Amino acid sequence: MAPSYIVFFGTFVHHSRANSKALAIQQGALWVSTTDGRIKGTDWTIVTEGDLRALLREKGWVPDTASHYRRGTRVKIVQAREDQNEFFFPGFIDTHMHAPQYPNTGLFGDSTLLDWLKKYTFPMEASFGSPFPNIPSPRAYRVYNQVVSRTLASGTTFASYFATIHVPATNLLATLCQKRGQRALIGRVCMDHSLDPKDTYKDASTEESIEFTKDVISYIQSIDPDGTVVKPIVTPRFALSCTSEAMESLGALAASYDPPLHIQTHIAENKQEIQDVQDLYKQSYAEVYATRGLLTPRTILAHGVHLTSDEHDLIHKQGSSISHCPASNSALGSGICPVRTLLDKGITVGLGTDVSGGYSPSILETVRQACLVSRLVRHLDTGNKSNEDDGDKMVLSVEEALYLATRGGAKSVRMEDDIGGFDIGMFWDAQLIHLGRFSPAQSQDDGESRVDVFGWEDWTEKIHKWVWNGSDRNVKGVWVGGRLVYGRSEVECESRRGWLSWALGAGVVGVGAVFAFRRMKL
Amino acid sequence: MAPSYIVFFGTFVHHSRANSKALAIQQGALWVSTTDGRIKGTDWTIVTEGDLRALLREKGWVPDTASHYRRGTRVKIVQAREDQNEFFFPGFIDTHMHAPQYPNTGLFGDSTLLDWLKKYTFPMEASFGSPFPNIPSPRAYRVYNQVVSRTLASGTTFASYFATIHVPATNLLATLCQKRGQRALIGRVCMDHSLDPKDTYKDASTEESIEFTKDVISYIQSIDPDGTVVKPIVTPRFALSCTSEAMESLGALAASYDPPLHIQTHIAENKQEIQDVQDLYKQSYAEVYATRGLLTPRTILAHGVHLTSDEHDLIHKQGSSISHCPASNSALGSGICPVRTLLDKGITVGLGTDVSGGYSPSILETVRQACLVSRLVRHLDTGNKSNEDDGDKMVLSVEEALYLATRGGAKSVRMEDDIGGFDIGMFWDAQLIHLGRFSPAQSQDDGESRVDVFGWEDWTEKIHKWVWNGSDRNVKGVWVGGRLVYGRSEVECESRRGWLSWALGAGVVGVGAVFAFRRMKL
Repeated sequence: MAPSYIVFFGTFVHHSRANSKALAIQQGALWVSTTDGRIKGTDWTIVTEGDLRALLREKGWVPDTASHYRRGTRVKIVQAREDQNEFFFPGFIDTHMHAPQYPNTGLFGDSTLLDWLKKYTFPMEASFGSPFPNIPSPRAYRVYNQVVSRTLASGTTFASYFATIHVPATNLLATLCQKRGQRALIGRVCMDHSLDPKDTYKDASTEESIEFTKDVISYIQSIDPDGTVVKPIVTPRFALSCTSEAMESLGALAASYDPPLHIQTHIAENKQEIQDVQDLYKQSYAEVYATRGLLTPRTILAHGVHLTSDEHDLIHKQGSSISHCPASNSALGSGICPVRTLLDKGITVGLGTDVSGGYSPSILETVRQACLVSRLVRHLDTGNKSNEDDGDKMVLSVEEALYLATRGGAKSVRMEDDIGGFDIGMFWDAQLIHLGRFSPAQSQDDGESRVDVFGWEDWTEKIHKWVWNGSDRNVKGVWVGGRLVYGRSEVECESRRGWLSWALGAGVVGVGAVFAFRRMKL
Repeated sequence: MAPSYIVFFGTFVHHSRANSKALAIQQGALWVSTTDGRIKGTDWTIVTEGDLRALLREKGWVPDTASHYRRGTRVKIVQAREDQNEFFFPGFIDTHMHAPQYPNTGLFGDSTLLDWLKKYTFPMEASFGSPFPNIPSPRAYRVYNQVVSRTLASGTTFASYFATIHVPATNLLATLCQKRGQRALIGRVCMDHSLDPKDTYKDASTEESIEFTKDVISYIQSIDPDGTVVKPIVTPRFALSCTSEAMESLGALAASYDPPLHIQTHIAENKQEIQDVQDLYKQSYAEVYATRGLLTPRTILAHGVHLTSDEHDLIHKQGSSISHCPASNSALGSGICPVRTLLDKGITVGLGTDVSGGYSPSILETVRQACLVSRLVRHLDTGNKSNEDDGDKMVLSVEEALYLATRGGAKSVRMEDDIGGFDIGMFWDAQLIHLGRFSPAQSQDDGESRVDVFGWEDWTEKIHKWVWNGSDRNVKGVWVGGRLVYGRSEVECESRRGWLSWALGAGVVGVGAVFAFRRMKL
């Protein structure tokens, strides 16, 4: 019989929903139902393994490793080992990523955005098409599988993906996320207009853009009717690559579902782009979207680097959220998004890797970059001198950046009651982080950890060290809705041990056979 | 007999000395004398292993793995495997690092520089003192050993270290570098003045500052008389923590040696600090140092974020170099050093991790940050509008940042004829980088690589991918002067294989013994 609960035991680090400025760090036990994957209870008085055994007795629970003759509800126990500086942390939420661009991470070519789109981005995305209807290109499988693997291994339990214009490849991405258990919003990219008439990578017509979007929506809703793991998201690429009609139709399409569908697009990333939008539409960037039904409480706007104060107000009024993509904004030289200003206005902010404008699929790297660029805001030229004085105020602390990566992202995708923290009733979407014991680097050459905990650090300092020098190397396990979707050490150790036993066993049998055979001949 | 040459075979990536804007990527063989650790020859016509065997025959060389009966000069062969996307790259040069602050990496506390120095930096440095004369504190050994390990494992073959004010601990750092084979400049920190009279971590007097510095210099020159691996560097902390007399005496001290000693200090990191220097000395920051004999062709100035144009000219005239520390400058909110402006003025620029103002001991991370911040220069407030227009010009390419990390650093420490590239006659200070073959991430869960090479990338693109997502995980071997000072996979594989053979062997013998014993009884 499968265990009915998983009991997690050790140190838990998250934020309480109301406080983005401090980490809630608790030691104890937390249990998750395997039926619905939600947190059913916690006990912060549990300190020792003895306390844990007492809790199990009291509840009538029996570890699933115990003898089959013991009666009681079977539970699985997962420990974050204090002596190994391990802790549980909520899964990361990536609110903006272009899955098909993953193979281009780290390739920017020469300086300008337009060069980069033409040389790397569009050809890569175009290659996800296939000459056969309903069959994704082989590249789509290889790349999307790697994207889901890499992001899960980096602790990302939820991602909002831009795919390509191709229906079969986009459906494949949805299937992969669903099968492998990564929560995701999956968007077929709509782009029925292009700046350069020679471009071939675009929708053939506005009608096709809408029809293909509907096809993807119905496929995703057919494989996950409740939307527990994957949901569709309406995805006009951005104002310059969609016709006004397409944007209007997509806004209406999203609104026609119950509940309305999520929407994602780009906004105010680059100064030239903003000027082009203004020239074309004679409206501010936010107004272009608002007047076409695209600014909703379920809309994620990527970047928002150079929004005006009026646009901030409009976005706040409409309840849309911003996906802050600092790694991308620096790598493409777009600028620095003034996150503090957005937060002060009451706008919801999440973090996005924006692969491959961003060079890394890791939200931990994005957290680091969010902290770094926030410390440079004071030096920006914004036409007034207030930045210098407000410099300290603009700084995002490690705690705040981690909040954006979890609770902030959850609110951006309207799942703030379900994910982003360890409140009772929420899904267990979590990662087990392993920093390891201090050991001299020369002996620690298995590449396990680059975070050196010397032993005198408190938990807050350990978390800071993780943020600044941690990576996917420190991710030991990842769960979505209580299901283990990535597990490094456990899986690895077991399979190695298995292989070694097998080799030794085979050796013994082989040698025995030889001996027996030789004796017989004598 | 030890081999007389090491023959390196595969892909070599470096810069020619005159061209910082392009990588020189060559396939072939390169050989290094084990006597002096210098590159003796290259042959770029060697493509296959057959070509390599022909070269060996022609030279009368025999691989050290060959039968002992074969005659000829024994050579060791080290291959960068093309199918594993491996290549040789010059060792990194870190021109600014505070070794004792390493345990604080990632700990910044609250916002301001002063808080950070008081809460983390000074207490940590003070703890390297010991109540016993001539005996370093136990912490000094533990931390310095880890620093040398981590930096070697990150490919740093040369580092210019700030130590603490303590003579025994500083001598220990020199000994560790010398024994473990990391080239280093070792500086006992001089600070005979403090802003806060309550500070206890400082030199007792100006005389003590000079005397203790001399002690360290003579110790280092005694353990490495030629200065091949370790050399002393005169280290006034910065203008505000030294008296004018101390700075003058230290300038004179450095000049009194033949050749004159290297000098390192900080300059123009933070706007408030610059104002304080101006208020105290009624001179520009660079003039303070110049007029006290500290601006020499062997001087490394850390940061130089906010230098004036006049100061640029003065530094250029004096032939001093700047250590650009972008990770630190962002993390502490100091600003962005306009590296392009420095280079255009003809100033030599190297890269520094500035641990623990910088959060990472890795120069590769510093390369990445140098690229990123250079793309934000266009958005800075510098009192004029030229940045915006010159934005593209200010961008450092991946190639240029790698040049600063190797050739630029070499010139900063006046070793441009010896290290930083693969020219004939130079020391073999190099790293073997392993990107690995593409494999789906789920099976690649040993944390080996985060750089996904899909197979269609050319070498330039592979190098770019390494810079953006690589880490110490990709460093397979590191050599200094032809000596292997860090080797991950080789060492690891051999020891594992050894252990496995031993286990299997023991199993066979054991089982054999049991069988023989049972037969005897029968």
